[in-house]
Amino acid sequence: MQIDRYIADRLAQLREEGNYRVFADLERHRGAFPRATRRSGSGSGPVTIWCSNDYLGMGQHPDVLAAMHGALDRSGAGAGGTRNISGTTHDHVALEAELADLHGKEAALLFTSGYVSNWAALGTLGAMLPDCLILSDALNHASMIEGIRHSRADRVIWTHNDMADLEAKLAAQPLERPKIIAFESVYSMDGDIAPIAEICDLADRYNAMTYLDEVHAVGLYGPRGGGVAEREGLMERITVIEGTLGKAFGVVGGYIAASADLCDFVRSFASGFIFTTALPPHVAAGACASVRHLKQSSIERRIQQERVAELRARFDAIGLPHVPNPSHIIPLMVGDPVKCKFISDTLLDEFGIYIQPINYPTVPKGTERLRITPSPVHDPADLDRLCTALETLWTRCQLARMPRAAQ
Amino acid sequence: MQIDRYIADRLAQLREEGNYRVFADLERHRGAFPRATRRSGSGSGPVTIWCSNDYLGMGQHPDVLAAMHGALDRSGAGAGGTRNISGTTHDHVALEAELADLHGKEAALLFTSGYVSNWAALGTLGAMLPDCLILSDALNHASMIEGIRHSRADRVIWTHNDMADLEAKLAAQPLERPKIIAFESVYSMDGDIAPIAEICDLADRYNAMTYLDEVHAVGLYGPRGGGVAEREGLMERITVIEGTLGKAFGVVGGYIAASADLCDFVRSFASGFIFTTALPPHVAAGACASVRHLKQSSIERRIQQERVAELRARFDAIGLPHVPNPSHIIPLMVGDPVKCKFISDTLLDEFGIYIQPINYPTVPKGTERLRITPSPVHDPADLDRLCTALETLWTRCQLARMPRAAQ
Ligand SMILES: Cc1ncc(COP(=O)(O)O)c(C=O)c1O
Ligand SMILES: Cc1ncc(COP(=O)(O)O)c(C=O)c1O
Repeated sequence: MQIDRYIADRLAQLREEGNYRVFADLERHRGAFPRATRRSGSGSGPVTIWCSNDYLGMGQHPDVLAAMHGALDRSGAGAGGTRNISGTTHDHVALEAELADLHGKEAALLFTSGYVSNWAALGTLGAMLPDCLILSDALNHASMIEGIRHSRADRVIWTHNDMADLEAKLAAQPLERPKIIAFESVYSMDGDIAPIAEICDLADRYNAMTYLDEVHAVGLYGPRGGGVAEREGLMERITVIEGTLGKAFGVVGGYIAASADLCDFVRSFASGFIFTTALPPHVAAGACASVRHLKQSSIERRIQQERVAELRARFDAIGLPHVPNPSHIIPLMVGDPVKCKFISDTLLDEFGIYIQPINYPTVPKGTERLRITPSPVHDPADLDRLCTALETLWTRCQLARMPRAAQ
Repeated sequence: MQIDRYIADRLAQLREEGNYRVFADLERHRGAFPRATRRSGSGSGPVTIWCSNDYLGMGQHPDVLAAMHGALDRSGAGAGGTRNISGTTHDHVALEAELADLHGKEAALLFTSGYVSNWAALGTLGAMLPDCLILSDALNHASMIEGIRHSRADRVIWTHNDMADLEAKLAAQPLERPKIIAFESVYSMDGDIAPIAEICDLADRYNAMTYLDEVHAVGLYGPRGGGVAEREGLMERITVIEGTLGKAFGVVGGYIAASADLCDFVRSFASGFIFTTALPPHVAAGACASVRHLKQSSIERRIQQERVAELRARFDAIGLPHVPNPSHIIPLMVGDPVKCKFISDTLLDEFGIYIQPINYPTVPKGTERLRITPSPVHDPADLDRLCTALETLWTRCQLARMPRAAQ
């Protein structure tokens, strides 16, 4: 078989379907975020980013940057080894303690990313707990799906956020069988939130562990930014809380927080933890400063929520079809990959507004959307410009509007 | 089943076997590396690191740090998104171009780590090329093994570096079947080097692709630090070259370099590439500075090789059983996990020398060792201190010596 030909054909097929991704080449401006410069050959120029997961602008917070500059000067650029072989620094140890405290757990364990934390933790628990069954929400993130698949444990998928279905699936299992219910708090692409308390009740009733991905919630919900489980007083009912340092905390990396033994178990057996260079010390130091800041400051969260509410109200006023949800994520539905990309391209080229189109495979075909993430660093004039641009394009593309408060 | 109890028992078992890992808590001193401060409760104090994979001390190179400080000030702490959704910056684009050039390939693709690059690239190629067979060297790194396993492609393991066995396994397959020969150049724990030219010959004869992990070679071999394949003039015969930015380049991250279409294919389909926050721009900027520096400077490589040769000669003179190999890695064999840990602990407590014991599962049981990595930043006095300490401990533990030049 002609492998080169096969690969070229698959790429051509993606292009035909409108699912070929072109990455915008950006230069973020520290201190002026969400401002950036676009550096694509064709259309260079200033842009305002409206689709970042640096949800609170912590990536430019002075405390975070000072901690990173300081640790770079103190310890250099990299860890120089795996956690076990010369790669553990005091910055890692301090960050793990900070994260354990954030979630009210005995311990936390760092990974190179949130993706790797889900993949490695679920992969290890599923593989090593004898006869383990993983009950996975149907809309779980790719990193959880891959971890579960990797574990080769039995897996049952329950209908997204559907308690009756989850209960039926739990009830069908022997009580003593090890079970993990894996789910997210805030679902990234729809912005809906899981009924965590009900899931914990079911877990208690049917003797299951709970594994909660709070990637889109840590830093953003709860009085100290511990996530939705913190806000709802449920952290201690969750067996494993997983989070990222790369979204609201503004840096990079991932972690789990759980009992000391469980973290030690994953630390001792997870290939994806053991056999990889540790995060650089200055990354750990920056993340630690960010977590610390958001533990005692709520102003960023408050202003973010105001911006989100304001933008939703403006979208309602002009009939833009955003999906209502209780989170900070505003999905504006287009429902067609080619139009979605066209709107995104035009926003960029004509209006200097950057919102990446979200197409398959990130969301199901037919649900293509613009995923908008207002942050405390977007000012009222930014909101004006965004609404004007979207209204113009909605008219130009003859896209459907919603009657006010229809959904 | 009592899950807590099961987990506690497995941890107790690790402790009994001597395979429970305790991470040394270190603070590297930028500008004075391999000097560090150990910050463990019991034994704090200054140490010299002899087991880092920051092989050339690039983690403290002024150009690397200047690039990182500069990009932090310019763009902030994190990328704020996946590569597709606002996370691609010009620093990523520039680094990918630099890495493609380093390996003489059309393109390169960045990942969050070398581990993820192997896992995602092999996982994607193995899963997506129809009826693909992966021929994997028996000593391949965990990240390749997991990637191959993840792909669910058929897999055949060939005896480590054994050309007759590889040929037999290739010859048993239909010529037209897609095949990938996956191997490393420098094997990390034994320091031996694969016969790359012979493997390429077999790949040509039997119509196979070649996938070469140069993680322990990039920056270190070849006139521009392109790895062993560069040194031997074989880069263009390798289909995919994989490397890390976290070892000789001193920062963190991983990549593949290959044809533009192959990189685009992995970019478009690899879950572990798509669904994760991009490396921070300043990490890309630092790695780029490091790659650039080592492209035009050979002095670090030359001094490193001198230090390695010197230390080997000193070990020979005092009969310490190191494994001879053609690389920069010196495995000093102990062959017992408890003794290996004892020597390592004593080196740390009595001599201020840090060499992590390498026990199972990193190496097979019975081959426990100290893995020593001399670098250009170790000075002659460091070598003296290391040899004196090891000689003392070898006597104290009544470990076997080698007659001069016996192996
Ligand atoms: C729900 C969810 N979990 C995990 C991840 C992975 O986290 P990270 O970006 O830190 O790899 C993401 C997104 O990237 C996500 O959306
Ligand atoms: C041969 C080999 N490949 C890949 C890796 C993973 O690279 P990274 O540390 O960048 O994840 C390592 C070590 O960590 C390795 O030894």
